[in-house]
Amino acid sequence: MTGNTYYSHEVHGPFALHDIGDLVLEDGGTIRGCQLAVASFGTPNAARDNVILVPTWYSGTSKIIEQVYIGEGRALDPTKYQIVVVNQIGGGLSSSPHNVPAPAGGPNFPRVRIGDDVRAQHQLLTEKLNIDSLALVVGGSMGSQQTYEWAVRYPSMVKRAAPIAGTARNTVHDFLFTETLVDAITSDPAFNRGFYASPADVRDGLLRHAKMWAAMGWSTEFFQRERHKVLGFSSLDDFITNFMFAYFSVMDPNNLLCMAWKWQRGDVSRHTGGDLRAALARITAKTFVMPMSSDMFFPAADCQAEWRLIRNAEFRPIDTVDGHLALFGADANALAQIDRNLKDLLAVTV
Amino acid sequence: MTGNTYYSHEVHGPFALHDIGDLVLEDGGTIRGCQLAVASFGTPNAARDNVILVPTWYSGTSKIIEQVYIGEGRALDPTKYQIVVVNQIGGGLSSSPHNVPAPAGGPNFPRVRIGDDVRAQHQLLTEKLNIDSLALVVGGSMGSQQTYEWAVRYPSMVKRAAPIAGTARNTVHDFLFTETLVDAITSDPAFNRGFYASPADVRDGLLRHAKMWAAMGWSTEFFQRERHKVLGFSSLDDFITNFMFAYFSVMDPNNLLCMAWKWQRGDVSRHTGGDLRAALARITAKTFVMPMSSDMFFPAADCQAEWRLIRNAEFRPIDTVDGHLALFGADANALAQIDRNLKDLLAVTV
Repeated sequence: MTGNTYYSHEVHGPFALHDIGDLVLEDGGTIRGCQLAVASFGTPNAARDNVILVPTWYSGTSKIIEQVYIGEGRALDPTKYQIVVVNQIGGGLSSSPHNVPAPAGGPNFPRVRIGDDVRAQHQLLTEKLNIDSLALVVGGSMGSQQTYEWAVRYPSMVKRAAPIAGTARNTVHDFLFTETLVDAITSDPAFNRGFYASPADVRDGLLRHAKMWAAMGWSTEFFQRERHKVLGFSSLDDFITNFMFAYFSVMDPNNLLCMAWKWQRGDVSRHTGGDLRAALARITAKTFVMPMSSDMFFPAADCQAEWRLIRNAEFRPIDTVDGHLALFGADANALAQIDRNLKDLLAVTV
Repeated sequence: MTGNTYYSHEVHGPFALHDIGDLVLEDGGTIRGCQLAVASFGTPNAARDNVILVPTWYSGTSKIIEQVYIGEGRALDPTKYQIVVVNQIGGGLSSSPHNVPAPAGGPNFPRVRIGDDVRAQHQLLTEKLNIDSLALVVGGSMGSQQTYEWAVRYPSMVKRAAPIAGTARNTVHDFLFTETLVDAITSDPAFNRGFYASPADVRDGLLRHAKMWAAMGWSTEFFQRERHKVLGFSSLDDFITNFMFAYFSVMDPNNLLCMAWKWQRGDVSRHTGGDLRAALARITAKTFVMPMSSDMFFPAADCQAEWRLIRNAEFRPIDTVDGHLALFGADANALAQIDRNLKDLLAVTV
């Protein structure tokens, strides 16, 4: 299963691989010689206080962060900041089910939690990259989960936090939606309990998974306004096949399942015995909470409820009809709002 | 497949079966000796102008209409009106895949459209039940689709119309959601192209179908407020197993697929070459458009857009966090709003 050419330097590079040694996981497993794939842009200043950390979302890698969010004149401006994008474990570039050899890889890859990623990233930054302060942690979706985890777990290190389109504690509804994604894959007989030869074998399951992402990832208004046609697709079928399925069909099912399990259980209140208020009270970072207004599974109302529990936070919803997947950057206006907010946030003296 | 005990008088009765003869369908098939299952409450008055027609929704029968919506003092008051609930074709009580013998039944049951149901109901009312005027047509979800079809197809017969939680022309997003429901069932190897022995064989597919209904049928806020616990379930798993799956697991998969195909293609603009404005302009009924405020696949905005195209209509959204499945009646406040609106509508002189 290491032959997957999608998770390659050719498609997602350049990135550097850092070995942080054995990572003992919260749920009892160990990733031996855990590798973190890092794409870095810009350079640290003399004071080393211009570092921005960006963790990645479900199915996404550092490449889409680079392409959609980083550039001169943007909020994430590599001429001003050192921007460090760390790929999440299971995402396909860092240690993941598909690239860890048997018997530890594939369906035997251990359970990983958001907290494991954040501990691994902390170790990488402090021990390997000589970074001990972060001007900003910003991430979307599962990147938002990691952003919250960073702000709660290492408050003195995180000056600013921008969780976009994600929550600090996953909701019951979101857990359920993710479960339907998991079922879509695992119910394919060709999935064979994770022992398939290639993603192509699991194409039926991956197609169902892609369709459910289409139904929940955008929004009802996205389709009502025919945004899928604006994006260059002639019909719903064309959009499903040549955008949604084209995107997911090359990914490793066990990788997706590793991330889904982690996503379902994102919860900063694990630090405080289930007390979300107490967990969020640990955040000292100046925080901008940025849901997508039309998000169907990380709805703005849920993000707003968490924002109320954070001391030094502003609620800055992004007005868009692209739903959760406005993260992909197809709505230029949504991107402009995110950029404006991030520039405002970075301008705040902390 | 005729042995299914769920679709029985014991569970759903009493109802009467009317044979309306051969029903030639829009898509070319024929249902021979088409049976319509009718539950009737109250009696016609001398002028025969107090008849209310209620078509049924996906998976629902006349029984839930009776239990949740009909009663003395309610808007649908059998001491004032003759209330005729006609079960949709494919719903399990009227002619349906599971009760039509081979080779015409099961997966060979022909494609049925909303327009076929409404023509069949019209024939039943005018030829068998001596009804040629309807004080009100009211239905939820697919019942709303049939309500719109009635008002467009037979405007002189429909005095008032109350489409609840449904649209006149199905949207691309709703089509996609329904497709994921279809896939959930048909992807189960035990579905066997529709040639299964009993619903229990297709339990995996029906469970996935039930989960997707749970994720889209209620709302994010429903779960955030723990309404599933208020309804008597101790956890999400308990709710999925003992409410959602308990509900769907006994239903015939081919019946569900027959209804899903029909639901996906509900569209009054078939009468006007695709011109929705022209189709809705045919409506003369006083119409109350009643979406559920938190509906995730018949969203209020879509219903509002159609309401704007209807001459003599009021937009009366139902404020609820129960989403589409507020139709089930678990939110007493939503039911009270529906009742108030229907009483207002019935009080309008037409």
